[in-house]
Parts: sequence; structure tokens; C-alpha cells
Amino acid sequence: MSREKRVYLYDSTLRDGAQTQGVDFSAADKTAIARELDALGIDYVEGGWPGANDTDDTFFAHPPEFTRGQLAAFGMTRRAGRSAANDPGLQTLLSTPARVVTLVGKTWDFQCKVALGVDLDENRRMIADSIAHTAATVNEALFDAEHFFDGYKSNPEYALSCLKAALDAGARWVVLCDTNGGTLPGEVAGIVAEVTKVIPGSHLGIHCHNDTENAVANSLAAVMAGVRQVQGTLNGLGERCGNANLISIIPSLMLKLGYETGLTTHDLARLKHVSRLLDERLNRAPDRRAPYVGDSAFAHKGGLHVSAVERDPRCYEHVPPEAVGNQRQILVSNQAGRSNVLARFREIGLEVGAADERIGHLLETVKQMEAKGFAFDGAEASFELLARRELAEVPEYFRLSSFRVIDERRWNARGELITLSEATIKMEIAGERHMTVAEGNGPVNALDAALRKVLLPVYPVLGDLRLVDYKVRILTPDAATAAVTRVMIESADAKGNRWTTVGVSANVIDASFNALHDALTYRLFKSGQKAA
Amino acid sequence: MSREKRVYLYDSTLRDGAQTQGVDFSAADKTAIARELDALGIDYVEGGWPGANDTDDTFFAHPPEFTRGQLAAFGMTRRAGRSAANDPGLQTLLSTPARVVTLVGKTWDFQCKVALGVDLDENRRMIADSIAHTAATVNEALFDAEHFFDGYKSNPEYALSCLKAALDAGARWVVLCDTNGGTLPGEVAGIVAEVTKVIPGSHLGIHCHNDTENAVANSLAAVMAGVRQVQGTLNGLGERCGNANLISIIPSLMLKLGYETGLTTHDLARLKHVSRLLDERLNRAPDRRAPYVGDSAFAHKGGLHVSAVERDPRCYEHVPPEAVGNQRQILVSNQAGRSNVLARFREIGLEVGAADERIGHLLETVKQMEAKGFAFDGAEASFELLARRELAEVPEYFRLSSFRVIDERRWNARGELITLSEATIKMEIAGERHMTVAEGNGPVNALDAALRKVLLPVYPVLGDLRLVDYKVRILTPDAATAAVTRVMIESADAKGNRWTTVGVSANVIDASFNALHDALTYRLFKSGQKAA
Repeated sequence: MSREKRVYLYDSTLRDGAQTQGVDFSAADKTAIARELDALGIDYVEGGWPGANDTDDTFFAHPPEFTRGQLAAFGMTRRAGRSAANDPGLQTLLSTPARVVTLVGKTWDFQCKVALGVDLDENRRMIADSIAHTAATVNEALFDAEHFFDGYKSNPEYALSCLKAALDAGARWVVLCDTNGGTLPGEVAGIVAEVTKVIPGSHLGIHCHNDTENAVANSLAAVMAGVRQVQGTLNGLGERCGNANLISIIPSLMLKLGYETGLTTHDLARLKHVSRLLDERLNRAPDRRAPYVGDSAFAHKGGLHVSAVERDPRCYEHVPPEAVGNQRQILVSNQAGRSNVLARFREIGLEVGAADERIGHLLETVKQMEAKGFAFDGAEASFELLARRELAEVPEYFRLSSFRVIDERRWNARGELITLSEATIKMEIAGERHMTVAEGNGPVNALDAALRKVLLPVYPVLGDLRLVDYKVRILTPDAATAAVTRVMIESADAKGNRWTTVGVSANVIDASFNALHDALTYRLFKSGQKAA
Repeated sequence: MSREKRVYLYDSTLRDGAQTQGVDFSAADKTAIARELDALGIDYVEGGWPGANDTDDTFFAHPPEFTRGQLAAFGMTRRAGRSAANDPGLQTLLSTPARVVTLVGKTWDFQCKVALGVDLDENRRMIADSIAHTAATVNEALFDAEHFFDGYKSNPEYALSCLKAALDAGARWVVLCDTNGGTLPGEVAGIVAEVTKVIPGSHLGIHCHNDTENAVANSLAAVMAGVRQVQGTLNGLGERCGNANLISIIPSLMLKLGYETGLTTHDLARLKHVSRLLDERLNRAPDRRAPYVGDSAFAHKGGLHVSAVERDPRCYEHVPPEAVGNQRQILVSNQAGRSNVLARFREIGLEVGAADERIGHLLETVKQMEAKGFAFDGAEASFELLARRELAEVPEYFRLSSFRVIDERRWNARGELITLSEATIKMEIAGERHMTVAEGNGPVNALDAALRKVLLPVYPVLGDLRLVDYKVRILTPDAATAAVTRVMIESADAKGNRWTTVGVSANVIDASFNALHDALTYRLFKSGQKAA
């Protein structure tokens, strides 16, 4: 492996990523994600900041075993006016099992003076002493140069002298951080080119934030200018607009720019899986539009495009989707032709001959339904049910006879204005009549509660089904509340599978019921359930 | 204004953005968004593809008046073996009111041969003929060179000869498209530099897709290499991973790279508003982490950062948030802006002194309501009512005592499955009790019908009120149908005034009623109606 083409990956999901608004890792989350990063082939996995909070202390007390990469701990250079050996923060940091330690320090003269009130020479000594002490204690010491690009623009000599001090003191890597995320790729390339005249690229890292939507480009620009370590996070997690997204950087480095990383091509094909795993841990909806790994990343709409893609994928796919563990998705939309429908069939594993007359019939049904306002684009589960019903594969698990939902706003006994929703349903399962009533925070929620009350004892597999999103859209806005409504429901099971169903009706409750019906049926069908 | 520093902006939200999975613009949406783009200072607003579908035909039949920019129509070069003048597609395209027409054509030899089966010379003639015919008919002809970067890499001479043919035939702009989104910034810079040797940058445009998360960087790289038109979409809408995000590109061009656009600094400060407006139209949750305009883009967590930011914002803010209409957000102590509220007051024509104590009280109320899920950004009418109620200016036109809505799905006498919604309301007007019942196509429609049945005889001015849009958003998606819901209702009167109101509640019917209540009250208040 040629040394110049090897780029080292440093993941900060568990430290900088933990700063994301709404993200709150447990120590168990950290352990699971660290294992996954190690298995993927990431060289350095930053676990957190020992001493900063209980979660990080718990994690570092018993970190997972690493088989391919190394665990890194993050902390600060020593305080002003102390020796490195007597700095309590550094002592905590160096006492964990992590044998790689990353220290952050200042290189921006303005920040030293204004934010810290520290003399420039003392700041540089803080870097040198701390790195020397760390390098003598663990396997690798890294220096994160906070605000380096701002520092370089303000006072290049001073900023470079800080990097040099770290390198001379034994830092394995000196990492250039664009802390406030404001530097553009052209500047990064220019400044890194200057830095490499003083520090060899084989000792340089880059750490970018996405405040101008250029974190990925800045990281690639730095690598092309000579840097050989890239820091980032899974799915671009991080405070404000996020850190550089390793999930986007890795395939561009490996598939397009010819660099080598710790990942094999086999590992690369697990990229989508790892991206999803993080979302599942955080209980976040995956970003459909994520480069390389999003569900829409290789989605094709419209008959013309589709036949072009099938003739030669290069026209509309910049890499083979399988290379990153993704797959081509053919959307069924009102622009759909026969080739879309056939392609979609193959995707869901349905083998139907191109000449099968049922295709023509299904196409006709799809067109009629779309004219009524159905959108199968975002509702693949409803499309699959429709197709499989055409082939008579889907049992009728339950049959609704009637429902009634009452929403009532009134003053309760304590003089509060309250609104209650209550649903009564009558349904048939295996020839037997069921009738029940349930309350909810609205008519649809009440209906959902009543349906489950009847279905769960018969079909326990529905126990882990959750509704994760509910969207209503008015299709002919000029008729407003009297218009046709389209309801999309996204559901999930305990394994992290997600599927979307659609219902359309002049009555929004009716549309919601239809989407709910498909959501439940899809779960039953996919679990191989027979009709009761 | 120096010509070399002027970059022209071309928005494709209504055409390429319409390809986004799950996005389905109505003609009314298109008109509203086109108006907003024109008001922002975008040079070219691409409205769609005349002849491609009913929505685009409806839009182009009566497009809005433009005051600053120009409307563009998109289509294809003529078919092989036809004259441009006799090509039906071109005829449709040239017959709309749009005086700028953009034609897409091939420049990739591989694609001509494989996807089209067209001879390379004939392909180049198709470009030249179509552009010449278009340039002679409308004000400006643009040539979109599909797959240009792939084409250049495959056969640079041929790709360049196609561009040259378009320019020589009278194209105002030749636009380099990275159609499958696979080109990286370094390559874009290198290839554009070569192209500018043949075509002057003042005639070159760039059109990027985000498949490697580099669409913004690619666009900036092209501008820095000489290109003077940038194509993109609001919020990066577009198929697969999206198009280049103009919302991120514009501030980097203007605030960081010193370029001029059609936007003034005053326009730039409306950027967040425009970004939000699109999300509201599409009923999408805004992306918190969006560069420049996201709620988290200038959010600061934790004491250290916050005091550093307050000592000097440059440490953690790469541009002043106000420059793009955003604001700093301190996550620990949520300090909302007094000046923001004052600015909103001025906007609705309310003169209140900065020292007025009612401002503090209103600020507190707004904060509490926003914490509950109210969003006044897209619901100015509800905000105005809230503010005017604080100043005791809004009469109580009617008071609801209670309502009950029943939705029933059952088999009717003819054996059809029908769903009926029926609302009963009790209310007080001028001390008198009213009780009525009405039917509708859903609970909200029934409620609306019952309200009007009572109100219209008392307040005839409500006769021309129409509800033009109704949107529901779930605010805590992980609780799905049991979550808090926000309802936005857009209303209009016969004069074409439109206003949006908001209601929030755990119960969707309750939220809808509150938004309806505000919609009716706003109409009464604005017409100068006294309480009955």
C-alpha cells in the first residue's frame, strides 16, 4: 500500500457529534457505536472527553475491545501557569485505557488575547509541554489546532509556530480545525498548501464544520493539498450545522479519488448499514436525500429516465449503488411507464413476465388511483400491497364493518376547556365480529387505538409496530377543508424497518383509516402472517 | 457595478426541484413561490416545462407578473431529423409568456450513441438549430449542456464543440450541468478553466447536483474559475440528493467571496424567511441544521461557548446571523429577541415604544406559545391577532361554548361504504345563545360549515371568506398520531387578500378549531367590524 495514498480516518461522532442539538448518547450507545466504527475500519474512534461528564467517564471506564482501529480520548492542553504533569485535567485524560490522546489548543492570536487572556509565548509552551507529556505517556498524541484557519489568516507566523511546537514535542498528528466552519474550499486548499511547507502532510489532519455546506469539500480539498488524516462524524452529526460527514467523504476518497483508507471494498459496502444504525440508535428518521446512502440517492422518477438508466446506469448513477450498500430505487409516479412498474416489481422481488396481462391492469389501476390523488412515490409499502393484491397474494387479515369517531370540546368539571376523541369500531376477523371503543388525542389516534385493541390479541406480531410520522396534504387547495386529502403514515418495527402507506379520500378520517389499514396489513404480510 | 463581480442567479425550484421525492407543487404553489423568488432578487425563475404536465401548463397560462427577475421556461432541443420550426415541443415552449427559454441537449458522445442513437453531427445541429430558432423568437435562449462534465471527460473536443455551437447560434448562456452529480470540486475547477478558454465566463453557467455532498462547493468552484451564472434550488430541492442549494450559495458569494448578485443586503436578510416559506408551502419540517438559515446554525450550547460568543461572536459565528435573517440562539437560556418582536410590530404597522412594558409581556407569551409548538413565522395573521389582543384592540366577536363532531363510516342503503362527518356547535354572540349542526367532508370541514351557519347572518362580511389551504404537521413525530399537532390554515377574501393562522393542540380537531377561529376573527377585524 503506497503511503502517500493512505488516508487515516478519525471519527468524532461520540465527542463532537454528541454536541448535536437533541442528541444524547448513553454509555451503552457509545459502546455500540464504537464497536461498529471499529468493525467498519475507522482508524481512530474518539470516545469522548474523560472527566467532562458521567457518560464519558462510564464509557472510558470499560471501553469495548478494538480489533482494527484505536480508541482516542479528547481533552485540553494544560492550563496556563501549571506544569503538564500537575494538571488535573491532563492526569484524568492520560489515566484511561485509551492509548491515543487528542489535545485541543489555541493557535489564533486574537483568541489567546481576547478569549483566554494568555500570553502568546505561554500559549505555545502550553501546547509543547502538554504534547510532550502526553506523547511520553501514551502511544500517540494528537494536537487539534482550534480555529487554525482564522488564526492563520490573522497571524500566519504565530499559528504555524504553534503547529511546529506540537510536532517537535512529539505529536503524531497536527489537526487543522475550522472551528466556526466559515472557511471555503479555495482558502482551505491555499492555506494547507502553505502549511505543508512547514509540516509534512503525513502528519497533518483536517477537521471541518458544515456552516457553509462545504465541510465535505473542505476535507477533500485538504486531502488533495496533502493532508493525510480526515476527522468527521457519521451522518455529519455535530453542533450547529454539523461536522464533516464521513459517510460522504469515505466513498469519494475511495471510489473517485483513488485514496486508500482502513476500509476494504467489502467494508465500504456496509456504509449504508452503519449510517442507518446510528439513526436507529438516535431514533431519528434517516435522511432520504443523504448522498451515497439515502433512500433517494439512487432513485429514478419518470419513464424516460428509467429506460435510460436501465440501458446504461452511468447516465444517472455516478457510482454503482451496491458499492456503498445502497440500491437503485424506481419510483412509481404519474410519469411512470411500464418499464417503471416492471423495474419496481423486480426490486420488491416479484417475478412477473413483461407480457403478463396483469401488468397492464395494474398500470391502469395505478393511473386511476394517481388521478384520484394517491402518490406511490413516497409510499412504497402501499404500492407493494397494491401489486401483490393484483397477484392475489395478500390475505384479508381483518375487515372493518363500521366505525364512529366522536370529538367533543366542552368544559369539564374543573372548569377547563377540554377536547376528547373517542372511536368505536366494528370489525370481522375470521368470520367473528368484534366491537370495541378507545380514546385518543384526536380522531385518528383514537381509531388507531381501537384497531389495535381488537387486532393485538389475534396478531401479537403487531405489538412492536409504531407510527413514526403522520402527514396530511390537501390536494385541491382551492376547495380547502372540503378538498380531497392525502394522508401518509410512516411506521416502524422493533428491527428498525420503516415503511410508508398512503390513503386518499374526501374525508380525512377515511383517508387516515385507509393508510392505517395498509400499515397494519403490510406489517402482517411481511412477517409471513397467515390470515386468522 | 463591476461586470466581472456580478453573478447571475437562476432558480430551478419549480422545475428540477419538482422532481424531489414527495414534492408535488400545485399551480398555486408555483405562482406563490415564483413571486417570492422575484421579490428576493433572483435573476431567472424557471417555472417548469410547458407541455410536460397539467400543472406546468396551468402555471404558464397565467404566470405572475415579474418586477425584478425574468420567468424562464424549460424544454428540449428539437428531435432528430426535424426542423426546429416544425418541432411540436419547441412550438409549445416558445408560445408561453416566458421570454427566457432554456433548452437542454446532449454533449456526451457516449450518451448520444447509447441513450439516443443519434449521430454526433446531427446532435450538434439539433443544438444549433434549436437555439437559433429560440433566440430569434424570445429575449434570451439558454443552453443546458446535460452531462457536460462526463462528456468533457469522455471527448473534450466534441463536448466543447457543442457548447460553441450553442453560443454561436445565439445562446445568452451556456450552462455546464453535472447531471448525475458525480463530479468533485477539483475536477469542476479544472474543466471550467479549460472551457473558459473557448467560451467567455460571462456566458457560462453551472448546474450541480448534490450526490457527493459537493453541489455547493462545485458551484463556488465554477464561479471562482470564471462562470457567471449559478443554477440551483431553494433549500437544495431536487431529485436524488438534491440540486445545489441557492440558500447556501448566495451568502457565501456575497458575504465571503465579494461577488454581487441581484440581491441587495436587505434582500439577503430575508433569506431565512424565503427558505421557511418554501418549507411551509411543502408542509415540510425546516432543517434545523441548514447552513446559514437553520435554527441551529447559530445555536450555542454550554456555558463556555456562550460566554466566548458573547465576548466576541467571531469565535463561533462565521457571519453575523442577522445578515441572512437568522439569529443567535443560546440553548441554555433561551434569550429570544426583543428587537425581533419590535421589528415584527413595525412590519404589521403597530407603533409601540421600545420601552413599553407590554412588549415584555408579549415576548413572554410568544416564548411560551412557541415552546408549545406555535410557529408564527408562517402565520403572520395569528401573530398580529396575538399582538393586537395584548393591546386590547381585538373584540371577541363570538364565543364557542362547546362542539361535538361525529365521523361515521358505514354502509348506506345502496350498499356503498360511506363516511359522514357532522358537527354540532353551541356558541354565544352578543350574549345570545346559538346552536346548530352541519355536515362536511371531514370533521374540520363540518366544523367550519357549522360556524359559518351561525356567523353569516350576524356578520355578512364573512360571505366571501374562503379557506384556501389546510396543513397539518406533527410536532413530535416519534409519538406519531398521539403527538402534538400544528394546523395552519390559509384563507382568502374576494379581493385576493390571503392570511395564515395557526392552531396547536394535542388534539388535531382542537388545533383546527383554533386556527379557524383566528381566521374568522382576522377577517372581521381587518374589515373594521365591531362586535355584534
